[in-house]
Parts: sequence; C-alpha cells; structure tokens
Amino acid sequence: MSGSREVLMQRMTWQEYVERLEKDAIVVLPIGSLEQHGPHLPLDTDALIARGIATKLAERRNALVAPTVTYAAKSQAMSGGGQIFPGTTSLAGETLIHVVRDIVRGLIHHGVGRLMILNGHGENSAFIYEGVDLALMEPEYTAEVLVVNWWQLVSEKTLDKVFPTGFPGWDLEHGAVTETSLVHRLAPELVREEKLVDETLAFVPPYAIFPQPDDLVPTSGLLSQASGASAGKGEMLVEEILAGLVEIVDREWRDAGAPPSTHKP
Amino acid sequence: MSGSREVLMQRMTWQEYVERLEKDAIVVLPIGSLEQHGPHLPLDTDALIARGIATKLAERRNALVAPTVTYAAKSQAMSGGGQIFPGTTSLAGETLIHVVRDIVRGLIHHGVGRLMILNGHGENSAFIYEGVDLALMEPEYTAEVLVVNWWQLVSEKTLDKVFPTGFPGWDLEHGAVTETSLVHRLAPELVREEKLVDETLAFVPPYAIFPQPDDLVPTSGLLSQASGASAGKGEMLVEEILAGLVEIVDREWRDAGAPPSTHKP
Amino acid sequence: MSGSREVLMQRMTWQEYVERLEKDAIVVLPIGSLEQHGPHLPLDTDALIARGIATKLAERRNALVAPTVTYAAKSQAMSGGGQIFPGTTSLAGETLIHVVRDIVRGLIHHGVGRLMILNGHGENSAFIYEGVDLALMEPEYTAEVLVVNWWQLVSEKTLDKVFPTGFPGWDLEHGAVTETSLVHRLAPELVREEKLVDETLAFVPPYAIFPQPDDLVPTSGLLSQASGASAGKGEMLVEEILAGLVEIVDREWRDAGAPPSTHKP
Amino acid sequence: MSGSREVLMQRMTWQEYVERLEKDAIVVLPIGSLEQHGPHLPLDTDALIARGIATKLAERRNALVAPTVTYAAKSQAMSGGGQIFPGTTSLAGETLIHVVRDIVRGLIHHGVGRLMILNGHGENSAFIYEGVDLALMEPEYTAEVLVVNWWQLVSEKTLDKVFPTGFPGWDLEHGAVTETSLVHRLAPELVREEKLVDETLAFVPPYAIFPQPDDLVPTSGLLSQASGASAGKGEMLVEEILAGLVEIVDREWRDAGAPPSTHKP
Amino acid sequence: MSGSREVLMQRMTWQEYVERLEKDAIVVLPIGSLEQHGPHLPLDTDALIARGIATKLAERRNALVAPTVTYAAKSQAMSGGGQIFPGTTSLAGETLIHVVRDIVRGLIHHGVGRLMILNGHGENSAFIYEGVDLALMEPEYTAEVLVVNWWQLVSEKTLDKVFPTGFPGWDLEHGAVTETSLVHRLAPELVREEKLVDETLAFVPPYAIFPQPDDLVPTSGLLSQASGASAGKGEMLVEEILAGLVEIVDREWRDAGAPPSTHKP
Amino acid sequence: MSGSREVLMQRMTWQEYVERLEKDAIVVLPIGSLEQHGPHLPLDTDALIARGIATKLAERRNALVAPTVTYAAKSQAMSGGGQIFPGTTSLAGETLIHVVRDIVRGLIHHGVGRLMILNGHGENSAFIYEGVDLALMEPEYTAEVLVVNWWQLVSEKTLDKVFPTGFPGWDLEHGAVTETSLVHRLAPELVREEKLVDETLAFVPPYAIFPQPDDLVPTSGLLSQASGASAGKGEMLVEEILAGLVEIVDREWRDAGAPPSTHKP
Repeated sequence: MSGSREVLMQRMTWQEYVERLEKDAIVVLPIGSLEQHGPHLPLDTDALIARGIATKLAERRNALVAPTVTYAAKSQAMSGGGQIFPGTTSLAGETLIHVVRDIVRGLIHHGVGRLMILNGHGENSAFIYEGVDLALMEPEYTAEVLVVNWWQLVSEKTLDKVFPTGFPGWDLEHGAVTETSLVHRLAPELVREEKLVDETLAFVPPYAIFPQPDDLVPTSGLLSQASGASAGKGEMLVEEILAGLVEIVDREWRDAGAPPSTHKP
Repeated sequence: MSGSREVLMQRMTWQEYVERLEKDAIVVLPIGSLEQHGPHLPLDTDALIARGIATKLAERRNALVAPTVTYAAKSQAMSGGGQIFPGTTSLAGETLIHVVRDIVRGLIHHGVGRLMILNGHGENSAFIYEGVDLALMEPEYTAEVLVVNWWQLVSEKTLDKVFPTGFPGWDLEHGAVTETSLVHRLAPELVREEKLVDETLAFVPPYAIFPQPDDLVPTSGLLSQASGASAGKGEMLVEEILAGLVEIVDREWRDAGAPPSTHKP
Repeated sequence: MSGSREVLMQRMTWQEYVERLEKDAIVVLPIGSLEQHGPHLPLDTDALIARGIATKLAERRNALVAPTVTYAAKSQAMSGGGQIFPGTTSLAGETLIHVVRDIVRGLIHHGVGRLMILNGHGENSAFIYEGVDLALMEPEYTAEVLVVNWWQLVSEKTLDKVFPTGFPGWDLEHGAVTETSLVHRLAPELVREEKLVDETLAFVPPYAIFPQPDDLVPTSGLLSQASGASAGKGEMLVEEILAGLVEIVDREWRDAGAPPSTHKP
Repeated sequence: MSGSREVLMQRMTWQEYVERLEKDAIVVLPIGSLEQHGPHLPLDTDALIARGIATKLAERRNALVAPTVTYAAKSQAMSGGGQIFPGTTSLAGETLIHVVRDIVRGLIHHGVGRLMILNGHGENSAFIYEGVDLALMEPEYTAEVLVVNWWQLVSEKTLDKVFPTGFPGWDLEHGAVTETSLVHRLAPELVREEKLVDETLAFVPPYAIFPQPDDLVPTSGLLSQASGASAGKGEMLVEEILAGLVEIVDREWRDAGAPPSTHKP
Repeated sequence: MSGSREVLMQRMTWQEYVERLEKDAIVVLPIGSLEQHGPHLPLDTDALIARGIATKLAERRNALVAPTVTYAAKSQAMSGGGQIFPGTTSLAGETLIHVVRDIVRGLIHHGVGRLMILNGHGENSAFIYEGVDLALMEPEYTAEVLVVNWWQLVSEKTLDKVFPTGFPGWDLEHGAVTETSLVHRLAPELVREEKLVDETLAFVPPYAIFPQPDDLVPTSGLLSQASGASAGKGEMLVEEILAGLVEIVDREWRDAGAPPSTHKP
Repeated sequence: MSGSREVLMQRMTWQEYVERLEKDAIVVLPIGSLEQHGPHLPLDTDALIARGIATKLAERRNALVAPTVTYAAKSQAMSGGGQIFPGTTSLAGETLIHVVRDIVRGLIHHGVGRLMILNGHGENSAFIYEGVDLALMEPEYTAEVLVVNWWQLVSEKTLDKVFPTGFPGWDLEHGAVTETSLVHRLAPELVREEKLVDETLAFVPPYAIFPQPDDLVPTSGLLSQASGASAGKGEMLVEEILAGLVEIVDREWRDAGAPPSTHKP
C-alpha cells in the first residue's frame, strides 16, 4: 500500500471497502470476454481494456473497481469470430444474465447505490441489460446502474483520425485498429506486433448463420485490418473514453465527482 | 383456398405442410414485439413488419411462414422507449431464448432443414442468436438457420433517399420514418396519421440507465421524427429488403430459389 | 379504423390501449397451439378457435383481446396425436409457464386488473395455471385472473345435440366434431371437407405411453370421427360458449358488463 | 426379511436391487401429494393410495416399488381445495418436472427398462408427462415409461355401484367417497370417521380463479360428499384398479407378467 | 390413533396439523438419499436414519415430522461410492435446491415459524443451505430454519468408543460402522449381517475425479470397514445425537422445549 | 514476453494457446471468492491463493492457468462469516454450477482433455462438482477433470507445525493462520499486519442457522485467531500443497509431468 490510493475492490479489506462506500464511492464493474483476438492480441483483450479504463476512471473520480468478469457471452462470427476458435471460452447467455444479476444484487445488498458496468465485449450488452433489469426487479434492490459500452463514447471525429481511410464499423473492429491501439496503450507487452496480419473480408453477410460455416471468418480470426494501430491512437482513444466516462459520472452522480483526497490530515 | 398458393403454415393442414417440406420449402419465422410505437402506430408494429415481409418473401421463393412470435424481448429506453410505456408487454430474456430454442427444435424435429428467422425488434437479436445456438447444440438437431434483422438489408443509398436531412441511426428509428413508412405500405389502415408528432431528443445518452428515468423518453414514446414517412418510402424499403432476402436465399440455399408452381398439371 | 370498435390490442396504439384500460376494459388472452388437427383442419385450429371466441366476447362486453399465444404445450398422444406429427411445433412445459408468467406480469404492470385467459388446447391448462400462479406470487403483481377452457362451458344438453350417437369424451375431440364445427363457423375457408376421414380408435389406452408408439394414433392424426360436423353445430357451440363467458364476466366483474359505446357524443 | 418377497426398492441393498432388475423386474414409481383431504383423511392421502396400490401390484407381477414422491404439484381450488389450506405443501411445477426427469433418468441409468409411474394426484399429470418427456429426450436414456392415473382405471359400472345417487365427477372426488373408501381399505387407522362432514358446493365454477377467493371452497376443504364411503367400496376399487394395472403390464410388457417365485429351490 | 401422540405430519388431517402449529410445534424435515450402502444396508439408509432420529426428537420435544425427502443430491465417489452404483438414484443439484426452497416456503406459508432440517446425506448440505437461503430471500417468507447434519453432533469421546482402533473420518463412514450401528438400532430387520464385508481403500485421493474411474471404489460400494457395528453403538449414537438435538431446540427455541401433553383434560 | 514461459491463458493469443494444448498441456482453473477475510486480508484472498498456487504449479509441470473465477458461492456463517459482511459478493448456487459447467464445456470444446480445478473457497466444492458433472453428462464432452481443494493437501504433520497449540479445524480457518500465512507468501503487500485481531468464538454451533443471527460471527469477520501466521509458514504450506499437486499430476496424467522446455533449439 504505497502512497497512491487503492481502487481495486479485491485488494481492499472489507472494512476499507465499507469506508470507501460510506464516502459515496461509485463502483465500476468491468465485463470483458475470453475470446480470440487474432494472432497478435491476448485472449482477454476485452477484459483488459474494460479493466484498464475502469481503473483510470477510478483514479479521476471517486470510484472503486470490482473484480472483472472475464468469462462472458458467446462470440458471434461477424463480431468476434464465433465460438469455433480455440481459446474462446464463454458462458451461455442465461448464465451471464445470472452472473450479472447476482453481482449487482450482491453489491447493492451491501450498500452500493451507484454502479457503472463498463463493457468491453459487444455480444455482452443485451445479457447485461437483462441481468441488471432482473436484479432491480425485486423491490428491495434499489440502486442506479449505468451500463456503458466503451465504443459508444468514441466520437466520429476521433474515428476519422484513427481510420484515415474510413471506419469499417464497430462490429468488425475485433482485434483490429481500435482494440490493438488500446492494448498498445494499456498493456503494450501483450501486443505481438510481428504476428499482426491484415484481413479484409471478401464478404460480410448482413445476417447471422448457424451453425457457423468454417470458411466465414479468416483463419487468423481477424475481421478487419489491424495495421495502423499505435500507442498514440490508443492514448487518444483512452483519453476520449475517459473524458466521456467522467462526463457521465458528473452528469448522473454530480456529488460523486470529486475523488477523495489520499492525504488525510 | 383460392388459386393463390398458401404460404402461412398455420393455415395448412399437417399433410399440406409435409408436402411443402418435401419440396424443400424454406421456413421463415417472423419475430416481432408488442411494444409502444408512438401515438400513430399499433403495438405490434415490429411483428406486422416482420410478418409482412416474410409473407412477401414466401411469394417470391419457395418458403412457408411459421406463426409470428409477437411477445418478445424487453424494450430498451434508447431503442424502444423502455418497459415503462403501457402496452409494451414483453418476455424475460431467458423466456425468449427458450421460446426460440423450442420452436427451432420443433421445426427441425419434423424435417425443416432451412430456417430463416426474420427479426423486427432490435432488442431480440442476442436472445434469438442464443436460442438458435442452444437448439443446435444437441447433435440430433441439424439444420441451417439464418437470422436476419430487416434493417441490416437497407443500403446507405436508400437511407439517403429516405432521410434527405440525415439518418439519425437505427436505434432511434422506433416508430419513426422507416417503420411508419413500412406500416404505410404493409398495413396502411393502421397508421393514425393525425396523431403523428415529431420528437427530437435533446440528449441521447450513449449508455443505458437502470431503472429508466421517467423523463428520459418523450411522453409520446417516440425517439426521432416520423414525419416524412410515406407509402412510397415504405415501398422502396420493402423492395430493397425483399431483394436482399431473395439474394440471401439464392446465395445460401441455391436450389430453394424457385418457388413451386401453383398450377400443377 | 371504421365505425366498429377495435378490440384487438395489437392494432391499437399505446394511447388507445391506455384509454381503454382506463375505462375498465377486461383483457382476454387467447392461448392455442400449433398442432396437427387431422387432414381437414389447419395447424392453428386451437388458436383460431380461442381467438375467434375471444373476439366475439370482446364485442359483447368491455374487453380487449391480447395477441394470441400460438406456440404452446406439447401434444399428448391420446388428446392431440402427440409430438410425432409434422407441423406440431410446441414449447417445453417450463417455457410455456414462463411465457404465461411474463405476459401476465407485463399486462398487470401497465394496469390490467382483470384478465381472462381463454384456452383452446387441453394440454396447456396445468402450465397456464402454474404461470399465473407464479406471476401473482410477487406481492407487487395484483390482479384477478380467470382461466377458461372453452369446452368446460359446453353443456351436456348441447353435447347431446352435437353427438346424436353419443359423446366420445373431450380428450378424443381433437379435430373431430366440435372443433371441425367451430372452424366451420369461425373460419369456414379453412375446412378441407373433402379431406375429412372418420377414425375410430380400436383401443384407447387409459394411460400414457412414452415414447409414443408409432401405431398408437391413426395415420390421419384423428382420434375420433369428424363427420357430422357443421357450421350449424359450430354456431350452437359458439353461442353457448359465448353465453357462458358473458355470464362469467357478469358474475366476476359485474361493472365490466357494459361495452363502451362506440359513438362518443 | 420374512418369507415374503420384498418389493420396496428402498429396503433392498443395491445388490438385491440389481438381482431383481436382472430378472426383468418392472419398477413402479408412486407419486402423490401432501395436501389437505378434509377433516377425516390424512395429508398424504394421495401418496398412500398410490403407494398402497403399487405395492399390491408388485405382489401380483414382477415389480419393485421405488420410494414414493410425496411433495408434488400445487393443489387447484376445484380439484384439491387449493394452496390456501394449511398442510398443503407443494412443489413449483418446474420443480416437479425436474424431480420426475431426474428420477426417471436415474432409474434408466442403472438398467431400468420398464417403468410405471402411478399417480395419485390429479394436478400432477401434466408435469409428470413433461418430466418423462424431458428424461427421454436425450438419446442415451431409453426405456418404456407408462404413466397411470389410478382413477382412469375405474369403470363406469363400478362408479355406478360406488355412487348410487350419481357420480359428481373426478375433479370433486377429493377426500370424498372414492378416496375415503380407498383409505378405509389401505390404511383404515387413518380415517377419522367421526370428523367426516358432507359438503355440497353451491356453485362449481367451470373455470379457474386466481388468486383463489377465500370463500370458493368450503372451510372443511371438501368439495363433495364423503359419506357412503366404506372399506367394501375401497376393496372394490382397489381390485378393479389392480386388475387394470395387471392388464396393462400384461399387454405392454408381456414377459414381465409372471412374478418371481419366492421359494428358490 | 391410539393413546400415543402422532408426530408424523403426513398422518395428520390438515386440522390436526393446524392445531399442532398453533401450539408452537417445531417442524422437522428429514432429508436422506436413495444410495447404495454396501451389501448389507438398504438403499434408503440415509433417509431412514434421518427420519428415525427426527421421530425420536419429536417425541421428546414439541415437534412434528414432515415427510422425508428421499431422492436427494448425487453421491460422490469418496463419500458415497458415486453415481455408478445401481440403486443410487439422485436429483440434480439444482433440483434439490428447488425442492428444499419449495418445501420451506410451503411450510412457512401456512404458519411454520421454526423449522429444523435434519440431514442424513453429506452431499446434500450445500444444496440444502442454498435452498433455504433462496426460500428466505423473499421478504414475505420469514422463519427460523436450522440445518443439522447428524454427524456433527457426535463427540470425539463417542467416536473413540465407537472406533477403538481409530476413526477413519466422516467421509468414508458410508455404510460403515456408524451407519450400520444406527440401522441396527433404528431398523434392525434391514441389516444383512451375513453380507457385511470389510473394505479398506488402498488409496483415498484427496481430490475428486470426473468422470469417476471404475476402479476407484471397491466393488462392494463400501469405503471403510463396517465390522464392529452393533445395536449398542447405535444406541449410543442415537442418544448422543438426540441429546444434541434437544440441546439445540432448547437453546434456539426455548419455549418450544416442552412437548404437549397427550392427555387433554 | 521475456525469456520465461507464459502460463496465464488470458495473456496468450489463441494460436499460442493452441500450440500449448497440442503439447498436451494441462489447464488449471482457479476458483476463489470475493469474501470478507477479516480486517487484515483482502476480499479476494481465496482467489489469489488459488491463482498463486496454480501459477506455481504451471511452472513446475506442463500446465496453463485459465482466468480465475472470482465471484463464487455464498459464504456460510461458520466457514466464512456469511453474506452479512459488506464486500462479500457472491453468486447463487445455480449460477456457479452453470458458470463451471459452461467453462468446462468451453475448454473441452477446444481440445482440453485434462483439466484441474483448484478451489480456494470451501463453500464452492459441491457446486463445482455439480457443474463438472453436468458438463460431462453430454456424450460429446469428454475429458478428465480433477477438482482439488488446496487444504486437502495439507498433512497433519504440517498442521502440527503451523498450529503449535492445536488446529481449530478447516471450517474456522477463514482469514486465520493458514490463509494469512499464504497471503504473506503469495502477496505480502496485501497483509495489513497492524489490523490483525485474534478472535475466539465463544460458541461454534454444530449446525447452520438461517437467517444468520447478527451476533453469531464476531464483528471482525474472523472465526479463529490469525496471529502466529508468517511468510515462513506460508512457504511451508505452499511447498506442501505444490508437492501434492505435482504428485496428483504425475499420478493421474503421467506423461504430462515434464514441463516444456522454454529454450527451443
């Protein structure tokens, strides 16, 4: 425990946690995935991005970061390569709904009144919404819960800078320029730059096919090109997302804006 | 039973159904919702659009239309106004997953090898994918299942025509120009033109808020303007969507392309 | 929207629906099945009968008709031919329980205090009761819910007229005289009179056999004779069932008896 | 272990059980309820009748009796008085479905190929069918399962004798003449003759009401008169039901007819 | 109904049950298993022990015994031989959780405020705790529930007497000295003394192996020696367990201590 | 990626993961909890111990470590303080069963044939067993799965050394000497030595009480004394547990014993 303020809930004792909640701390719950992200990014890319950003938010506002949910919704072919890639290890939709419901209730049960779920895996969204809805359905569970997909905070202006030759759309941004840039920024040692390949899909079907045909997704697992990613772009993305999150916190939970001083007199 | 070919499964006897399946008919399952669609559109807007388009597809290709699933996923605030509007009557996410799983298995059980699910309610997608995935997980259930959201078949070119002043994005297109135009085309008697109001949201939060604040969605239930809708635009949309569906059928199930002659020698 | 009063909830806007609920309208929810009904009746026979009667009730009393639940409980051999006939497409019992629970809660959530579920498929009953019971178990869901199987409203006197040579019992009345007569009355274009065959089961086991033996049910899918059905008998049945439903409404929900005037001054 | 053959599975060692299964023994699973049965019959009336008859069947044919399932489906007002009577302690429908599924699979897993479920509680039927269906849905679980409601084996001729003044119908036969007579025969010490009251319902609604009105069922819990019950009638009923069961066994499982000799040379 | 007080709930009428509850009777719910217990003990050993002790407790304190749950949690290899032995017929963990939840709620619903669950099968514990927790989670279900595993009431002093050569640990005590002694005491006719074999496991892995290897458990199904069991030891165990239960009742529910007089003036 | 071999699955790309699996790597899945551990240990104590040991095992044998499951089974009063302490954030039993089932299936699906689940939270065991059992129930999921609770590998000899004044039993060892010593060894910066208090429970009920009385567990959350813990004892424990794990791997999966060389020629 150095001078810096601890933000990770799991590293706190229960009494430290209580103390922080009593000071109106927001809890941020990162949810990611364990999913192939091409030959150059690690399996927990979605989780590390969500956790990385959550941690930075907690440093700027009065927030704690709950342990990241790493096992999450199944991967779909046209947004994550699908369940056919080794390493992609997922929960059934219902299981994820229940995981979210239980964690949200557990946090509320002990006094969390403001919870932000920060999602890093597109396929999770509907199940997270459902889990939160179930959690709050019982009258004794009362809290304000925000669910944020980080990519919804990236402006078109930034996209123009990140993709000088045109943005291929968020669905295909899987292990591609934005995620690779974010990992460059958040966990640079995990980018295997030499393994990076560029994929362009000959055909992106505007519909889902079950079971997934073997040849729908390139063998690399990528859906779009990753070259052009950089730590600089990662920095730009992180800063914009963080600014967006700070703005959300300040709008929704005004008085939570000020982070607690780490130097108590 | 007039001269025209019957396409609605529910109106067939079981023997007629078998006969059609033996001729390699595709089955199309429309899934909609029962959800407020502003002061001018009926509660089953999503269902009638999915069913209407499915029926037209069945007339162009060798397909049957299974009964529409009307009760479906919960409405989210920023894409359908949320569960707070009277009339919006929904299933829990898990229930919808199971409904889809059971219907898909039931159809496969009796010989359906090619199933297209045509979805008319954005919030359904993830639960439909999950239901189909569960259905096909058991080795004895083998079929090709396509899931199509009709809006994914609308080109940017058409959007430019439909929205001369700019497309607000599919999420906000709830009871707005595209859906109103489609109902104008598919069930004109159900558009209350005189009730039509235009809404513009002062603020569209790029995140979801639970529980839904009372003042997030306008009291009309609309998220975007509906004026400018017309039967002509509806016709344009229907034709483009149908062309897209025909293309999908012809690509994925080549030999299913030819509709059976209604005049048997 | 002609002069006649709209009774189908799905065709109303949410505001029209609210207006009707504020005038103490009862909601009627028809539940049927998608199930073989012999060579002469359509797959949704149970659903169309329930919906047809519900609509007529809504014209006589102050009621709305919610969208029909078509996919419902599995067919049993000795009451519906069983799951072995193509076209019979059903939900697992638990799924139907949840569908009913969710719809009942959804309706109550928006102010429905009086709900009648009109069932047209014998195998549904226990699952409907369970679904309603679950819905009302939570203290915040309060309403009066009646579940009516239409055949329970047919008197012995009428049965004597409909079956001059003796009533074979309701279980075997599947696609037989009563249902065929009702479809004659409610959707005459859907009776394939020329396909009608008469079946008499050599043996009706007073027990259920799993898995269903291939030769238990005649290949037609019928369990009892259908000849002798007529639109006249259908009319007699419809009138008696309707009279029974009106009596139920007037007994249980006295003040709901009067239908709202369609001519507002 | 006296000279008589043991038929209760729970009293056998696992090796004795295996030995019996190897001799092609049928397994009979009684399912009852824990439900009020008026002021004169015990709470487990349905269970003791099912178990009593099962045991007698096992003495006449080569059968074992598995432990009785006592906690079962909820009571409905018009067939069991409903859940409002103290002592009525029930499972949710889904729980019963799973209990049946698990027991059926468990028995099949260890070699049971012929299973008869003997049901003593009307409300159980649909859930038992569903549980059996789920159990057999997986390809690795193969067996013949019969589900018998004992009242389906009582002939009209016998009903005429048991009810000289007319049979009120099986639904109302709850703690009434047939069940009281059966307990007289199977567990005479459990009939509180002095407590017996006769009830006649002023009105039997041909529909179900939720939540159950307080005054729908007489305060005794009975729905029909019980006077006129006797051990003699119980004997008549038991013998007819047993004859029916023996006939079923002999028809469905011919070679299982002969009970094993209890005197091994 | 002789002079002695009835303690078995299932043998009471609902009115007798109410009368007993009004006198503050505790309800004891025995939960056992249907599981192989070696060549010398019956399949329901765990259930008969739990029920036998519960009945004795009810005679010493003001308690009723609810019907025993016989089908319960799966057997694990190193504590019960595992699911590979014929006769072992179990519920899925979730099913048992729901069975417990439903029974606990059902009892509370009718006025039970003090419930003791007496468990006789080690593998049940976690699922019982979970079921009780779920039952009490809803605010309208309020009661005090104790869960007792009978072996937790056996002192080291007694173990020293029962196992003069050393106690092998509770996990291996499956059909071994303690359970055999208890059956000697509670149902002596069910011990097949001549079949008793002694097993000593060459190796007890301190971990669980799935799927269970065929040769992990001796073919007898025993994990430890049973010789040395006796009715005398059974008596010693029963008395100590009963004393422990009486102490629990007197500590937790002081005023429930006195059993009601059976001679009412 | 320095010279040392990566063992954390989440940090690998999917291709690196495949490569490792092709070399017969074992996968180790740590499961912990998020649970109060007294005033001196962090909330994820159970998780960090399981992960820490798993990582060390992976360095000694050919193993990968899957991401740790941190949210797990509810805490029970007498083994973890119960759900009443803030910070203790748990899953329902069924949710954990499904999480385990889904992860096990997901890993097997992509070729894992040898899986060790390393558990650090006593309350998880039964749910883990059930989840693994469900995963392997489907014929298409075949693998060898071992479940190890680390405390089962600690010998009495070591316990004698760790507890010179007597071992209080594993249930009470919650945040006490063993866990504190292990955290001293595995994450020394997380022990708040100055906050350490010693608790001795006046009374340890040999039964579970629901709902948990407020005064059952000391306000510190500890059940037993933690003083006497040390990094040295942690080292002793880690080494013994690791030796036990290595022995298990070598016994069960002989050829997996040799870790792959990190220096490929």
